[in-house]
Amino acid sequence: MTRQQLIRQLKRKNSFLCIGLDTDSKKIPTHLLSTEDPVFEFNKAIIDATKEFAVAYKLNTAFYEASGAKGWESLRKTLEYIPKDIFTIADAKRADIGNTSSMYAQAFFNTMNFDSVTVSPYMGFDSVKPFLEFDGKWAIILAATSNPGGLDFQYLKVGDQKLFEKVIETSMAWGSEENTMYVVGATRPETIKEIRQIIPNHFLLIPGVGVQGGDLRTVCENGLTRDCGLLVNFSRGIIYSDSSKNFAETTTKKAASIQLEMKKMLQQL
Amino acid sequence: MTRQQLIRQLKRKNSFLCIGLDTDSKKIPTHLLSTEDPVFEFNKAIIDATKEFAVAYKLNTAFYEASGAKGWESLRKTLEYIPKDIFTIADAKRADIGNTSSMYAQAFFNTMNFDSVTVSPYMGFDSVKPFLEFDGKWAIILAATSNPGGLDFQYLKVGDQKLFEKVIETSMAWGSEENTMYVVGATRPETIKEIRQIIPNHFLLIPGVGVQGGDLRTVCENGLTRDCGLLVNFSRGIIYSDSSKNFAETTTKKAASIQLEMKKMLQQL
Repeated sequence: MTRQQLIRQLKRKNSFLCIGLDTDSKKIPTHLLSTEDPVFEFNKAIIDATKEFAVAYKLNTAFYEASGAKGWESLRKTLEYIPKDIFTIADAKRADIGNTSSMYAQAFFNTMNFDSVTVSPYMGFDSVKPFLEFDGKWAIILAATSNPGGLDFQYLKVGDQKLFEKVIETSMAWGSEENTMYVVGATRPETIKEIRQIIPNHFLLIPGVGVQGGDLRTVCENGLTRDCGLLVNFSRGIIYSDSSKNFAETTTKKAASIQLEMKKMLQQL
Repeated sequence: MTRQQLIRQLKRKNSFLCIGLDTDSKKIPTHLLSTEDPVFEFNKAIIDATKEFAVAYKLNTAFYEASGAKGWESLRKTLEYIPKDIFTIADAKRADIGNTSSMYAQAFFNTMNFDSVTVSPYMGFDSVKPFLEFDGKWAIILAATSNPGGLDFQYLKVGDQKLFEKVIETSMAWGSEENTMYVVGATRPETIKEIRQIIPNHFLLIPGVGVQGGDLRTVCENGLTRDCGLLVNFSRGIIYSDSSKNFAETTTKKAASIQLEMKKMLQQL
């Protein structure tokens, strides 16, 4: 999906809601457990319940790999079920030496057909570039993550910059606003503001609103751009909001209410 | 596998050879392509050809993921085929927020039964700790990698240290010599020497000898410890050394000759 197509979708839906399908078979409504592929059944229901309000789905590969090959089948089937006009993210945190990153890119962009993959910057340019060689595909590079351990290395000073700033500044040259986004956690909103000084236009993928403690309004105040420029992710806080047979309706209500909030923020632009 | 078991194996075999099963179906001998699972058939032959000389097998997940669920089946079958007294490495470069890293640990240590996983340090302590909560299982943390992009961030100065030194110093406290190793590329031997100042006893996983240009003798001069302390990996340089029907015999000869060199180095300790 190109940047233009993404922005068009955001404007049409008045939304920048990304839904994280971190689907754990231990947490889904129990009545689904008797189906052949409970994880896929759950995902289908969540996608049907939210596709009107969501502009992106983020599939966290760990939750699928935990079930081995069967999990990879659920991952593939889920991806194929997502409407083609919605942006898809393989939240895989990959990256390795060049020939290996090429194989990861093949896995997520060819064998499957994700629009984007999250990648870790630690191994540098040749570990990220293979993800940038596909038309309409994106690398979403970890900059400042939402977790407590994000402080261990990402905020260390290198020269007069923090490491995550250096990561952004260096990696900007590997791609462009058309194929690179950055992960910035909602839990440290001042970081979003700092990052907007370096990259005023790049899209940011923002996890950490909800269960991890981040606040949507603060994220928007610091991160929104003329083109929106944000994908704000909700995972556990939205997909597990009800464990009854009516879980899909509850999820729809939750997604609709978040989208309404987002619409208001967009109108203030 | 415990540290003690690993060391016992190394001493018994007079070897610290790790073989990287980066198995690409485009590169294996063509006569295997008509079998049901060519990647697995190739791996079986390589394992049979080298198990006398190798102390570890490293399976690079990218090469299996590129074939989707079918590839994960090849990965699982290969792992199960490896003799139980040989150390196994999921070269997966994973790590994410805590609850997600727990799922990755489940994928590699429970659903499959790898002895170790390679992990990226960028997201800090809570992204690595879930891998350290299993008896006899290991996290192998990226420190200084062998690829050109390894210079982008890993060698940046943070205070009076390089970033990779800071990564090692900080992460040492998360685990111990019994469950943590570090990845250090063979392509920059002076780095191995520097790292031995910080961690004189930890095992190091050394890629980059062979195709990437690193030299075994130099690695040993800088990295060997009283307990050996090294696993030196050979992937492309050894598994694709012959594309004829006799590939297994050629691979045996190559593995035997590397092991002989290693034996000499161990005798000089």
